[in-house]
Amino acid sequence: MEQIEVQTQARQEFREITDSVQNVVQAGGIADGVCFLFCPHTTAGLTLNENWDPTVRHDLGLVFTDLVPHRSDFRHAEGNSPAHAKATLVGNSLFLFVRNGRLVLGSWQGVFLAEFDGPRRRRVFVEVIPT
Amino acid sequence: MEQIEVQTQARQEFREITDSVQNVVQAGGIADGVCFLFCPHTTAGLTLNENWDPTVRHDLGLVFTDLVPHRSDFRHAEGNSPAHAKATLVGNSLFLFVRNGRLVLGSWQGVFLAEFDGPRRRRVFVEVIPT
Amino acid sequence: MEQIEVQTQARQEFREITDSVQNVVQAGGIADGVCFLFCPHTTAGLTLNENWDPTVRHDLGLVFTDLVPHRSDFRHAEGNSPAHAKATLVGNSLFLFVRNGRLVLGSWQGVFLAEFDGPRRRRVFVEVIPT
Repeated sequence: MEQIEVQTQARQEFREITDSVQNVVQAGGIADGVCFLFCPHTTAGLTLNENWDPTVRHDLGLVFTDLVPHRSDFRHAEGNSPAHAKATLVGNSLFLFVRNGRLVLGSWQGVFLAEFDGPRRRRVFVEVIPT
Repeated sequence: MEQIEVQTQARQEFREITDSVQNVVQAGGIADGVCFLFCPHTTAGLTLNENWDPTVRHDLGLVFTDLVPHRSDFRHAEGNSPAHAKATLVGNSLFLFVRNGRLVLGSWQGVFLAEFDGPRRRRVFVEVIPT
Repeated sequence: MEQIEVQTQARQEFREITDSVQNVVQAGGIADGVCFLFCPHTTAGLTLNENWDPTVRHDLGLVFTDLVPHRSDFRHAEGNSPAHAKATLVGNSLFLFVRNGRLVLGSWQGVFLAEFDGPRRRRVFVEVIPT
């Protein structure tokens, strides 16, 4: 099990980690398999989306901000309940196929760490099972 | 890694692909394992839900339309930012258990391609790891 | 493939199942691997979130109730369309890494069955693939 470390910069941020994941896969030397990614945090998640046009990330941010607004009747004293809910909506784990040592991604797809309560130091665990 | 092709018909559509996945699993000949599905698109996803009563799909459509409305301050010039956000909410990958060559599904569960920016030609990659 | 049974108590509830999953993993005797969890229901899902402070679960409940309200134009006659939509938002499957026979979880992470149409008897299927 390998580990990627990411220092996020903003309260909410979709930070691309495709190249870091690809580097871990290559170093592991498994040509064909399934690559599993796991984010051990409760206010951040993992998602795939377009990595070509940065406006997509910007608009995703607007959507998530709107989707889970602050409420005065939240009980969690840390004040980051929206971040917890967004993490559950996005999910903490995803997998990708690996062929010839490369991640199999659509033309516009990148892997993103979704930060909802940053800036923080975040980790992503990576493991490849050969097929 | 096998591939399923789907031609969606509407802008937004929950299109069942359970039988296509089952056919790929059967052709692969692995009796017991985990079947991984991956959707290489940024405005479509994969989900499980009820396949018996088609009104469930209809109501899911209403929910997703409401959940992510268009906003005048979206910056992505293609105008499909809601579709990108819905794909992140639904997710692009899922797995199913396989027993005796059959997908393990609940009584009412089917596998759906969630189209959010159709009609388009979509692909789903399928791979089974034996257990 | 093992099975966990859960009797939920409320209409909507985030019920922790971390210990039950850990017990299944330990009984299976695989030291290092990936543990796959699958929920065969269309109005319940699986998610990871904070298990230390119970107010997080409470606030998650508020968010999900708000996110998918009832609508008069829902067609599904059972009246539980919001529960179906919430299950698709949360997802029905997730995986966890296993090291030395223990689930790899962040300091605050627990595994939850997300009940959206309870109280009901629910099942979660568990399988570990060694790495």
